Amino acid sequence: MKAAVYQGNRQIGIAVSDRRPPRPGEVRIAVSHCGICGTDLHIFLGDLDRRVRPPQVIGHEVSGVIEETGEGVSGWQPGDRVTVLPVVSCGACATCLAGHAHVCPQLKVLGVDAMGGMQRYWNAPAANLFRLPDSLPLAHGALIEPLAVACHDVRLAALRPGEKVLIIGGGPIGALCALVARHAGAAVAVVEVNPFRVELLRKMHLAVVNPKETDAGKFVQDWAGPEGADVAFEVSGTQAGADLMAAALRPKGRVVLVSVYAFRPQVDLYRFFARELTLLGVRLYDASDFRQALELAAAGVIPTDTFLTATRPIDEVQQAFEDLASGGNSMKVLIDCRA
Amino acid sequence: MKAAVYQGNRQIGIAVSDRRPPRPGEVRIAVSHCGICGTDLHIFLGDLDRRVRPPQVIGHEVSGVIEETGEGVSGWQPGDRVTVLPVVSCGACATCLAGHAHVCPQLKVLGVDAMGGMQRYWNAPAANLFRLPDSLPLAHGALIEPLAVACHDVRLAALRPGEKVLIIGGGPIGALCALVARHAGAAVAVVEVNPFRVELLRKMHLAVVNPKETDAGKFVQDWAGPEGADVAFEVSGTQAGADLMAAALRPKGRVVLVSVYAFRPQVDLYRFFARELTLLGVRLYDASDFRQALELAAAGVIPTDTFLTATRPIDEVQQAFEDLASGGNSMKVLIDCRA
Repeated sequence: MKAAVYQGNRQIGIAVSDRRPPRPGEVRIAVSHCGICGTDLHIFLGDLDRRVRPPQVIGHEVSGVIEETGEGVSGWQPGDRVTVLPVVSCGACATCLAGHAHVCPQLKVLGVDAMGGMQRYWNAPAANLFRLPDSLPLAHGALIEPLAVACHDVRLAALRPGEKVLIIGGGPIGALCALVARHAGAAVAVVEVNPFRVELLRKMHLAVVNPKETDAGKFVQDWAGPEGADVAFEVSGTQAGADLMAAALRPKGRVVLVSVYAFRPQVDLYRFFARELTLLGVRLYDASDFRQALELAAAGVIPTDTFLTATRPIDEVQQAFEDLASGGNSMKVLIDCRA
Repeated sequence: MKAAVYQGNRQIGIAVSDRRPPRPGEVRIAVSHCGICGTDLHIFLGDLDRRVRPPQVIGHEVSGVIEETGEGVSGWQPGDRVTVLPVVSCGACATCLAGHAHVCPQLKVLGVDAMGGMQRYWNAPAANLFRLPDSLPLAHGALIEPLAVACHDVRLAALRPGEKVLIIGGGPIGALCALVARHAGAAVAVVEVNPFRVELLRKMHLAVVNPKETDAGKFVQDWAGPEGADVAFEVSGTQAGADLMAAALRPKGRVVLVSVYAFRPQVDLYRFFARELTLLGVRLYDASDFRQALELAAAGVIPTDTFLTATRPIDEVQQAFEDLASGGNSMKVLIDCRA
């Protein structure tokens, strides 16, 4: 059985996924599917080399079935269908004690700072398990983690029904933010430059503007009114996105900063002052966001036929990353780990 | 009697301040003192030439005595000692109707977008008047407007007692933010590069660090603990300030963005994401902030002997601006308009 291992230098190799007995507090999961996330792409490209030590099994968007439970694990049985909240905080620092464990400075993300789940057998902490609803296909359990990101981001945005929400960047996380925001009653429009993704978003009945074809600022004025949108989700990680997030908003509007900037963009702080804009950095999720994601997935909030553009066997993982890195025609890609 | 008039090209001239009868809803104020604000300095330097049309009377930090009331004015009498909330909003747009009139896109600031109060006789809207407490010297009424800015900023920061608050930039507004935050129970430290101002701030019993002498990041760790400060007020308008505001904060910390950036600084948005920082743009004040400023001034929260570094006759207004523009030894400077 196989494991996808980051080897540095844009190489994801295949190694053996050992069937090890779970340690106390752990379960061994027979992994079914594992999604490829933007963070995984950053790992592939070397952007996270100071955190990821090759050879390391990557992957943190997992669905699978419990095979064996370790000592002291209660409430879980072999055969249970699960997904995993893939972060471990220290539990003892001021941030954790204040209830913000997901931004603990000592946080470890499984699949980034420690062994991940893109492998057939994965021993994971039982405390991090969530049960998949019976109605949810096992493969779709791998979408719960990114959906929990969107639930977290929309929750912190404190959207009110009818608010005009601009999503800047319509990749997988942007699309999920759009779907969850729409489900929360917001009026949503997405800014996306990739024509393939534009079409997918339109198939999901989302309003989309391609700034390569239409002036995004003009679009916002026509769509939201001359004062601007209520909320902007920055999910592009680009200078153009940083410009638009400030320019698009009405007085007292909110920026929800979702993207992981790999550089320090210029920001129009004068406009933040003049309009009393708020910028909210948002990251990851907590258990409540995972629970909401499970409910929304079971309710069919993700149009998976459109959203899931490929499922590839683990043997093709190197090619899957190369295709994503070259900006191909894709939205969400899953790796089938059952080989 | 005299008026200070911006003439463009770094010139503030002296013109005649006419004693005109107040229009309906207005009162004529015999102005006593008018402060010089950072915004006035921006006008002097030409940074606001797209808003300020020479020749224009500047000034918006005013104290004075009512001389005459216009038609329809009730509740005010000649002899009343007053200050003025110097902004007029449209009252009809979505922002005004939502209760955020101070960030109305059509907002007019008296002394910037319309005639100001740095003159002996000023006709001002009665609706914008606030009565000065008997215990407050008339000259000190000119400090209410900048103090209201600080009250607004600290209110939006939602400080909790004991929170570690870093004030980046110890000019007049930074100093007032520090004093009001301390009054709210916060533990305050100020970052300031001007040695004269450093000494004044220390005389006000504020902790101060000069980043030209001490590494500010190291100071914050020693003072607030390794995770960082709870809140940072950015009042410097510099790239170094934009860097420090993000670097100084603990996870879930808040930046209160007070300064008026004249350029687009680079901002470490990765850190805003990773630590879930919040940035709050803050501007001006509302009537509740003015009322609080009057209470705090009457309670002696501003050590005026230290804070007020000069009071100059209106005839010296050009020199006063030149001195401020050259970064001289000053904190708050008032213009005496009684000449």
